[in-house]
Amino acid sequence: MVKKKGILFLAGIGPGDHKTMTNHCVAVFRNCDVVVGYKRYVELAEPFIEKQQVISSGMTQEVERCNKAIQEAAKGKRVALISSGDSGVYGMAGLALEIVNKKKLWDRFAIEIIPGVPVIHAAAARLGAPLMNDYAVISLSDLLTPWEIIEKRLHHAAQSDMVICLYNPKSKKRTTHIKEAKSILLQYRKPDTPVGLARNVGRKGEAITLTTITMMLRYKIDMVTIIIIGNSATHVLNNRMITQRGYRF
Amino acid sequence: MVKKKGILFLAGIGPGDHKTMTNHCVAVFRNCDVVVGYKRYVELAEPFIEKQQVISSGMTQEVERCNKAIQEAAKGKRVALISSGDSGVYGMAGLALEIVNKKKLWDRFAIEIIPGVPVIHAAAARLGAPLMNDYAVISLSDLLTPWEIIEKRLHHAAQSDMVICLYNPKSKKRTTHIKEAKSILLQYRKPDTPVGLARNVGRKGEAITLTTITMMLRYKIDMVTIIIIGNSATHVLNNRMITQRGYRF
Repeated sequence: MVKKKGILFLAGIGPGDHKTMTNHCVAVFRNCDVVVGYKRYVELAEPFIEKQQVISSGMTQEVERCNKAIQEAAKGKRVALISSGDSGVYGMAGLALEIVNKKKLWDRFAIEIIPGVPVIHAAAARLGAPLMNDYAVISLSDLLTPWEIIEKRLHHAAQSDMVICLYNPKSKKRTTHIKEAKSILLQYRKPDTPVGLARNVGRKGEAITLTTITMMLRYKIDMVTIIIIGNSATHVLNNRMITQRGYRF
Repeated sequence: MVKKKGILFLAGIGPGDHKTMTNHCVAVFRNCDVVVGYKRYVELAEPFIEKQQVISSGMTQEVERCNKAIQEAAKGKRVALISSGDSGVYGMAGLALEIVNKKKLWDRFAIEIIPGVPVIHAAAARLGAPLMNDYAVISLSDLLTPWEIIEKRLHHAAQSDMVICLYNPKSKKRTTHIKEAKSILLQYRKPDTPVGLARNVGRKGEAITLTTITMMLRYKIDMVTIIIIGNSATHVLNNRMITQRGYRF
């Protein structure tokens, strides 16, 4: 008997609300045998999970989740390893591919990467249109990237007048990076530059705030907050944060 | 008689293939009266357009399209003004909001921004997982942004060791910017740094190429090509471009 070949879907579910999920991701949920993911993201996807086996685990268990998903795919199962937003943006896609390579499993099962709407773009849509021109995306978490590198990137991004999106701005243990980021930004940008804060985008407790670099730290900022810092062409019109792109009208 | 209030949807249809469209965008197509867009994008959305009125126009007619869409919404219609990818990334969202503001029409109709999968993320998924760590997104088109600013951003992005995504790398008239970009990149990055080229992602004629900074100009590059330039942690495994994020496994 020839063993059925498995498939590993590396799928981004979007920010969390079901309407921002792609048709492809919905189809993957309908057609897979196993769903593997961080337990909060599995909860977000629950309405789509019927008879599928679910393997979920806690934060920072990324390697373990990849290993589980790969194990199931190697058995011939159809496995969805899910990330919130896009699987390729601070998600599981890269790590899963690295592990498949290390274990020399490229030929054992198929792999398909299903792009999703990254959380920053759902955040941007709620705020207005802050990403209309060039932008940089930087995570303030130093769990996997040394702070000196993050700091250097903040300097360059701020100097270059690109709009800046910050992921993972502040955790319970890591509370000072966002303050350092603010002081770097103030070296190059006006204090009243518009800043958008988007917490829990597309999820329960969604909160959208328009503020400025000076005032931003007065609001609640945590790991489920996306911060978008405007550039010199960003302004606020009727409570919408908009970066002008130079059209004449 | 109270006039029915219109609504303007600023919707991103994703790269072009229907499976990468969000559920929300599909619902908008089903529930609107008028679809306004660049004719190629309207063609991509055609399977979703039934009885809706279609208003399409050519490239660089962005202001005209916004005006038409706003006019229809002001009449009380349900209007979808579409962009490819995400409406908030080099799309129509910002311009539409600016025009609504200038015409003082904020109270005349509702506005809803529907995020879509930006083309770079569909491109990244096809290439592997190149955007796993911090990245910069830069358009090489100087139609709306002076070249000196773009050049400065390229220098900063290249120095900061962020992955770099280039939109609009080369048009028929604008053929030298990509050469200048390449020489800026070579000032800071190794010549054999992996580069991914993704042409017509999700559309007819899709072509995915893995190359290097040195070799990238030997391939076809045009306005429907997305270029992703790796950083010092990007490598190629089994024809997949992957940026390592520092996990231990």
